[in-house]
Amino acid sequence: MSKLKVGVLGATGMVGQRFVQLLENHPWFEVTALAASEKSAGKSYGEAVAGRWKVSSRVPDYARKIKISDCAPDIDCSIVFSALDAGIAGRIEQSFAAEGYAVSSNSRNHRMEPDVPLIVPEVNSSHLELIDSQKKGRGWKGFIVTNPNCSTIHMCLALKPLHDTFRIEKAMVTTMQALSGAGYPGVASMDIIDNVIPFISGEEEKIETETLKILGSLSGSSVENAGLAVSASCNRVAVSDGHMESVSVKLSMKADEQGIVDAFRGFNPLRQLGLPSSPSQPVIVSEEPDRPQPRLDRNLESGMCSVVGRVRKCGVLDFKFTVLGHNTIRGAAGAAIMNAELMKVKGYI
Amino acid sequence: MSKLKVGVLGATGMVGQRFVQLLENHPWFEVTALAASEKSAGKSYGEAVAGRWKVSSRVPDYARKIKISDCAPDIDCSIVFSALDAGIAGRIEQSFAAEGYAVSSNSRNHRMEPDVPLIVPEVNSSHLELIDSQKKGRGWKGFIVTNPNCSTIHMCLALKPLHDTFRIEKAMVTTMQALSGAGYPGVASMDIIDNVIPFISGEEEKIETETLKILGSLSGSSVENAGLAVSASCNRVAVSDGHMESVSVKLSMKADEQGIVDAFRGFNPLRQLGLPSSPSQPVIVSEEPDRPQPRLDRNLESGMCSVVGRVRKCGVLDFKFTVLGHNTIRGAAGAAIMNAELMKVKGYI
Amino acid sequence: MSKLKVGVLGATGMVGQRFVQLLENHPWFEVTALAASEKSAGKSYGEAVAGRWKVSSRVPDYARKIKISDCAPDIDCSIVFSALDAGIAGRIEQSFAAEGYAVSSNSRNHRMEPDVPLIVPEVNSSHLELIDSQKKGRGWKGFIVTNPNCSTIHMCLALKPLHDTFRIEKAMVTTMQALSGAGYPGVASMDIIDNVIPFISGEEEKIETETLKILGSLSGSSVENAGLAVSASCNRVAVSDGHMESVSVKLSMKADEQGIVDAFRGFNPLRQLGLPSSPSQPVIVSEEPDRPQPRLDRNLESGMCSVVGRVRKCGVLDFKFTVLGHNTIRGAAGAAIMNAELMKVKGYI
Amino acid sequence: MSKLKVGVLGATGMVGQRFVQLLENHPWFEVTALAASEKSAGKSYGEAVAGRWKVSSRVPDYARKIKISDCAPDIDCSIVFSALDAGIAGRIEQSFAAEGYAVSSNSRNHRMEPDVPLIVPEVNSSHLELIDSQKKGRGWKGFIVTNPNCSTIHMCLALKPLHDTFRIEKAMVTTMQALSGAGYPGVASMDIIDNVIPFISGEEEKIETETLKILGSLSGSSVENAGLAVSASCNRVAVSDGHMESVSVKLSMKADEQGIVDAFRGFNPLRQLGLPSSPSQPVIVSEEPDRPQPRLDRNLESGMCSVVGRVRKCGVLDFKFTVLGHNTIRGAAGAAIMNAELMKVKGYI
Repeated sequence: MSKLKVGVLGATGMVGQRFVQLLENHPWFEVTALAASEKSAGKSYGEAVAGRWKVSSRVPDYARKIKISDCAPDIDCSIVFSALDAGIAGRIEQSFAAEGYAVSSNSRNHRMEPDVPLIVPEVNSSHLELIDSQKKGRGWKGFIVTNPNCSTIHMCLALKPLHDTFRIEKAMVTTMQALSGAGYPGVASMDIIDNVIPFISGEEEKIETETLKILGSLSGSSVENAGLAVSASCNRVAVSDGHMESVSVKLSMKADEQGIVDAFRGFNPLRQLGLPSSPSQPVIVSEEPDRPQPRLDRNLESGMCSVVGRVRKCGVLDFKFTVLGHNTIRGAAGAAIMNAELMKVKGYI
Repeated sequence: MSKLKVGVLGATGMVGQRFVQLLENHPWFEVTALAASEKSAGKSYGEAVAGRWKVSSRVPDYARKIKISDCAPDIDCSIVFSALDAGIAGRIEQSFAAEGYAVSSNSRNHRMEPDVPLIVPEVNSSHLELIDSQKKGRGWKGFIVTNPNCSTIHMCLALKPLHDTFRIEKAMVTTMQALSGAGYPGVASMDIIDNVIPFISGEEEKIETETLKILGSLSGSSVENAGLAVSASCNRVAVSDGHMESVSVKLSMKADEQGIVDAFRGFNPLRQLGLPSSPSQPVIVSEEPDRPQPRLDRNLESGMCSVVGRVRKCGVLDFKFTVLGHNTIRGAAGAAIMNAELMKVKGYI
Repeated sequence: MSKLKVGVLGATGMVGQRFVQLLENHPWFEVTALAASEKSAGKSYGEAVAGRWKVSSRVPDYARKIKISDCAPDIDCSIVFSALDAGIAGRIEQSFAAEGYAVSSNSRNHRMEPDVPLIVPEVNSSHLELIDSQKKGRGWKGFIVTNPNCSTIHMCLALKPLHDTFRIEKAMVTTMQALSGAGYPGVASMDIIDNVIPFISGEEEKIETETLKILGSLSGSSVENAGLAVSASCNRVAVSDGHMESVSVKLSMKADEQGIVDAFRGFNPLRQLGLPSSPSQPVIVSEEPDRPQPRLDRNLESGMCSVVGRVRKCGVLDFKFTVLGHNTIRGAAGAAIMNAELMKVKGYI
Repeated sequence: MSKLKVGVLGATGMVGQRFVQLLENHPWFEVTALAASEKSAGKSYGEAVAGRWKVSSRVPDYARKIKISDCAPDIDCSIVFSALDAGIAGRIEQSFAAEGYAVSSNSRNHRMEPDVPLIVPEVNSSHLELIDSQKKGRGWKGFIVTNPNCSTIHMCLALKPLHDTFRIEKAMVTTMQALSGAGYPGVASMDIIDNVIPFISGEEEKIETETLKILGSLSGSSVENAGLAVSASCNRVAVSDGHMESVSVKLSMKADEQGIVDAFRGFNPLRQLGLPSSPSQPVIVSEEPDRPQPRLDRNLESGMCSVVGRVRKCGVLDFKFTVLGHNTIRGAAGAAIMNAELMKVKGYI
């Protein structure tokens, strides 16, 4: 099988770098184009990221020599991964989709549009069916598929098995989010040393709205939101990678702690699909009383799983637990890549 | 007026050092005894804390020369502040109370005993009346008064004005707690660098039980717990001083954001008492969208107030907000000192 | 005595904020003007720094209401403190000096010009005499006086007593510098978490050249550089405030460790002058084996002294020791204020 | 070829965990014994390190079930790796050597004994010849080989190519060392947050003495120290793994920056030996002006190389540069494993 040609839009930023790293030696995809803003265009990728490569492994050899393209829909590939800033992602992603590219986007711009799938493969793969109406409705040769916000992905991976088994009525989450989630240069060091910042612009709204769409049901050519209430409080902490979330849930059905742990552990709906980036276990339950922890657990399953711990009763809602997930792997670049793998298996690309 | 003689038990530890610092030049109290474990006894305080003084100001001159005593009830003072470890605090504090000392304790041992006041001066000063029944019931010449756990104090300072005005039914809190709260050596640096620890032994239980007693009503010779549900999730973060808390509340009465802010700002029940350690404003409301923050706000009002910010609607309960407070000042040593000031004004010492 | 009117240029940045903080209640100076770039001009200072105030105390009340001026020489004061970026400081400071203002600058632009004093008051106060030739040579009604780079100041405070007593031939320094030295937003958090950056642009050159001028001798209308060799290696570490320096020196004259400690402790040439910002002891020698440390010692003498420790033999040069100093107080804003105090006492303003 | 049986002494500590991790799937060695102190003996390794495993990967499956032995010379293997504390390492390692085991030790106890090889394979592999006289002189069936202190190893890897080419006369180093070097619990978090500690007990002495032996020449049955002067200043910084060193050297022979870079790059004396843990390049030269950095570069060559950067002239000695190396991999466990690989290739085991 020859590999599918893929490109990365916004390839020089923090998430773009993760795409470049994770796509090295991908069994299905071959990177043939790296696109970025005008100030990088024309340089080799190696030159463009010199002094700005923030992933703790070297720039992959395959990428060093690639000449950076403009973000215009004339690059040599059929799939593009978008790590573009929200300020420009909307227009550019549309131009690519119109020209026939499959766009797998990590940007927030189109996530909440009714005809755009917002996908977490283990949670709502059926929502990919929106692609057809999207193409028809917009008259595009290609299409856009999105993945959720980094905090939302990991929360939804944890909520889905509980929602399936016990029906969640309410979910409250307080996040402690890593610095890499803010991009580069992102958070100033003087703002986070010996400190916590109790605010991340737009983040709480994303968690509260995206979750309802992801857990919702496909109904004709749109998604009917799930009927649960979600409340989020977001904080930035001095951690490089790995978002932590304290979650409490109210359930419709009777449950106990063991039942909740069993639901997490039994959750593996894509086991048979063989997606290359799929974790062998999407939700890992940690038994130790003080886990998960970002530094120790964020790289489990190559950063593609969510890690849950401290499952216990909640005195206000019903149960509470802690969720950890890698925010730039499963929470961003890895999510978009896994979405593309799912599209391929499902015949959309 | 000559000053009252006071002593500090457990004077060499992290909280003990704060007592020593905060009591320098106190207008009502004069430190005449510093007591610690046997391995320090006999040394001068300066020698005993050499290489172990972790407060970012110098060892006060008044304390350097004081010879460290054993923790036995024969020291020259009438009030003792206890910063003893829970493993030994119970027995020692009792021996002091039996011998006629007023014990103002930061240790957890006696907090939940029915005849022991658990005091936050602005919240439940009337609970000091338990002193009489305690002395009578136990046959002691002195007595024990306690202050709550560091996280609980700041949460209660924030909850009290809302409880008075709108009656709180449920309160959920996720904490992000500072390292100094674990004492010294406390948390290992390898456990917290680039990390969050989602567990603090015993902390959630303390918050969930102490809060009910503090907000409860005096009923004869005991306290009737307040009738609200409290759920806490506690995390340790890489911050030196200053506990952050994401709080959500459900209220019995109708409220709006402005009403909540007004309740915080109007709360100042001790304004007239003139306690030396009293903040001019117990609950400060921060207007900026990304505040409070530990590094920037923990020293407001000399670390004796709680700082609230981000008051907004909650999609699961009714309202949510962030609380910050200095954990070793208002959350520990400063709390016990202010309790003693209250006892003096109320005539108990 | 009525106070002298002073202004701050670049008042909204990291060093500008320190000027505003340190000038509150200054006994000799009264802030009558705060100037900043065009995007702040016209706002009140309180508005301009909202969300950008990074000093861990509140914006002083006196400053909140001051309307921000342009950085043009028509503001109501006789002395200006400059915290301007090097990109614009040169031209603006000259325009103020030409119009008759006394400019006390923390910017690097004019430091190495032959007719501009580069002053550390305890080290080379006589270099202020360059003011006369500067005014005459440039035809200015006012003048410019500069203070050194933050690392240089503390190194020179430590070197001067040794140079006076033992004549230094060579000095080698490796710095570990705080984040606040890079301004705001300055160092990206992703660049410093769990990390050290072994490079600070231009810093090594500043230390190597400024030191020679500061320790040099006034010779007619210029300064003859001191005849020692200096080599610097500069690193950025995850510390908010307080630069650490490992220093080794080769001396012309015979010395021993006690002699070196005595030289540090005996150094207090301005004891009689009564400058308000003068530390009671410019160089404090720490006895404990693991001090000085930034978090514990940077605020000694209100951040206006240097703290030395670990004086011992060096197997390559003669002696080595560690120096710590607060980089935005004595290393920047406090330095410029103390220079202005010296100018006043010496009759230049 | 069947694998050689190896054991780890002190297997539960920070360095012991690295041994267990690095020996997973080793092509030549098979772990058949894990030994630790009495309080762990009898437990499975998985139980013993539960809650204490601080390496950011899971406990290897092979190790989980191994029952922990006492540190007594009756365990089933022919080679033991020692990660014992210095307080007990001396006696225990001797007992193993006496009984016929090959001991590859990371402990400091025997490093400086005349008949004990102190080995960095690329630097002084010939010193292994001391084994013969050691066995004869002590009447042991086995023997002890040691690796240097973590900072010394990386400095020697950088110094050796320069010493070979240009003859080093003097070397001065200031280190910024990682937390993992202090073991677990090691450095208290309150001691290092927002801080630098300018002291590591015994470290400067180790660097200053071990370097001379490593760079020395074998002369009959002992090593003649190299004739250079070394001075070290050691600091602890808030970094998890990866020691940084600012090094300056004085050379006997004329050199320029390119010649120094060429010496580093041309240094690969073991290229032909095929040791499994050998880095493909022992000293990597970083071209970027702000590298090496611990977070980004410590895992190059799987943590087995040294990374050098910022080669430039020194105004006091001749040249200066920065060295980075992983302190628990090439600086400890990986060093001892590579030493054992060398012993095998050289026929000592």
